[in-house]
Amino acid sequence: MHKLLCGVDIGGTKCATALVDTNGKIVDKINTCAHVDLNEDGLVKLVAGQIKELFSRNNLQESDVEGIGIGCAGHIRFKDGVIITTSNLKGFKNYPLRDKMQAYFKIPVILDNDANAQAFGAFKFGAGKGYTDMVFLTISTGIGAGIIINNKLYRGVTGTAGEFGHTIIEPNSDLTCSCGNKGCIMAHACGMALPYLYKKKINEGKVSKLNLPSNFNISKLSGQILKKGLDMDDPVSKEIISDSAYYVGLGIYNIFQTLNPPLVVLGGGLTNWGDFYLDKIKATFRELARDMIFDPMDIVISNIGADAGVIGAAALTIE
Amino acid sequence: MHKLLCGVDIGGTKCATALVDTNGKIVDKINTCAHVDLNEDGLVKLVAGQIKELFSRNNLQESDVEGIGIGCAGHIRFKDGVIITTSNLKGFKNYPLRDKMQAYFKIPVILDNDANAQAFGAFKFGAGKGYTDMVFLTISTGIGAGIIINNKLYRGVTGTAGEFGHTIIEPNSDLTCSCGNKGCIMAHACGMALPYLYKKKINEGKVSKLNLPSNFNISKLSGQILKKGLDMDDPVSKEIISDSAYYVGLGIYNIFQTLNPPLVVLGGGLTNWGDFYLDKIKATFRELARDMIFDPMDIVISNIGADAGVIGAAALTIE
Repeated sequence: MHKLLCGVDIGGTKCATALVDTNGKIVDKINTCAHVDLNEDGLVKLVAGQIKELFSRNNLQESDVEGIGIGCAGHIRFKDGVIITTSNLKGFKNYPLRDKMQAYFKIPVILDNDANAQAFGAFKFGAGKGYTDMVFLTISTGIGAGIIINNKLYRGVTGTAGEFGHTIIEPNSDLTCSCGNKGCIMAHACGMALPYLYKKKINEGKVSKLNLPSNFNISKLSGQILKKGLDMDDPVSKEIISDSAYYVGLGIYNIFQTLNPPLVVLGGGLTNWGDFYLDKIKATFRELARDMIFDPMDIVISNIGADAGVIGAAALTIE
Repeated sequence: MHKLLCGVDIGGTKCATALVDTNGKIVDKINTCAHVDLNEDGLVKLVAGQIKELFSRNNLQESDVEGIGIGCAGHIRFKDGVIITTSNLKGFKNYPLRDKMQAYFKIPVILDNDANAQAFGAFKFGAGKGYTDMVFLTISTGIGAGIIINNKLYRGVTGTAGEFGHTIIEPNSDLTCSCGNKGCIMAHACGMALPYLYKKKINEGKVSKLNLPSNFNISKLSGQILKKGLDMDDPVSKEIISDSAYYVGLGIYNIFQTLNPPLVVLGGGLTNWGDFYLDKIKATFRELARDMIFDPMDIVISNIGADAGVIGAAALTIE
């Protein structure tokens, strides 16, 4: 019998803990939001308890499970299993999350960045199956990424490799990223940028069919709202989606020149914009790469879906 | 006795063939410019003859040599040993240079891009000694690069990985790169860009102390001329060098976010601009990376010097 894998996806609002089989299918899962109000040690205790609960209600010994993979947003020092900083949770500055969790278990605990976890999940269980190298980009509130080289995550010296979202592609841009720099890809093409992009279009005199209520808090303008706009053929929504896609396409072109991978997999909420978005991303890439591309590079949307975080975290145990 | 290595550096004007020891020191070398007027097979025959000449005049059997490494500018399909395209030599479209050369020898022949060769030379024999990962950038007429991951060159699916020079960092730039795109790093920060940058400064009303003759062909404005300007404290030369350094620094910041390497080594003619240039590159990098850098990333100028190409090519034989 193949062992099961255990994954934990610690997000800013939701924390998921799951048992996953070696085909990447969820066997059992516990979601919680209670972690948000806890301090560092409290969160570890909560999650460790939920893992033990999963083991127990599935009649598993710890030794029936390969290991525990944890994906967490923020800067992670992979070798040491330390969260250096994370903007998603209070505290957790230089917090040795891996060892703290390891104290509850004998099987190995692995801690990595959530984007790396999702990347490895897509590689093992999703669109990356059959490849040895790929790049994964997750485009939602922010932009994260993971690089697979020779069947393994490439993490760099600290563990922060793959931060394509923070590469600068418009140094004189009027858009400032959450990192403090101007003109990162993230500043132009993730969920956080949408309110700004919308206001800009409206200020340029463009008229949206979205019919947002007059008291609508524009900072809440989300990818889902623009998806509705796209479906109703709203020109402003389509322009914003198209502009975002342009910067993702340009980012993928830069990835192509840098790493020449055979595959780029896209995940994250904004991929729900679907073909209109993907087609513009691909068109931008092709237009820039033209006669410099000699082998196919596929750009596909991840097929793993909403549980990508926790499935990816589980995948870390079989890297 | 350690075997010797044989390297060939095929450039647009000069072709060097050398025996190199396993410390990266040149034992014997033949330079030629005669290759420029030859067709593909003629060039191979010329170089093969020079290699045999080197073997013979150093009393070597072929078996005393580890292998023959060839570095050549252009797009190289590494696995197949084929030059896909090169703008430095006439012809050579989809030319199987490696196998053509291999026909003259029993020891292995390896063909790679010249920037990859230089990168591996710097890794084995230069600033990269003691590291397992590094990025190399060569900044001269154009910008080339090579990525070392886990003691080996990372080449990507075709073999064209590491083309940081063609990553786009100013999509709305008025500078077009030789690749046809606007706003690549190469368009802003390599030798080819200097005449444009100089003309722009002069058109802005800036006054240069360079005292170029009135009939000076501005397309010949080189890094050496600007180095003279730098040495005489010419404000225009210094601004151009400083602007170029800014874009290199920004490119290195993007490399940092992408690959998080412990070391970036700079080679190529423009590094002769020295500390004024390097300091501005480092300052730009530090300003952008700020609190996102958690482990040191060294930025150093390669110490291999003028023979970097042929020494790097030789290094390919012991990758």
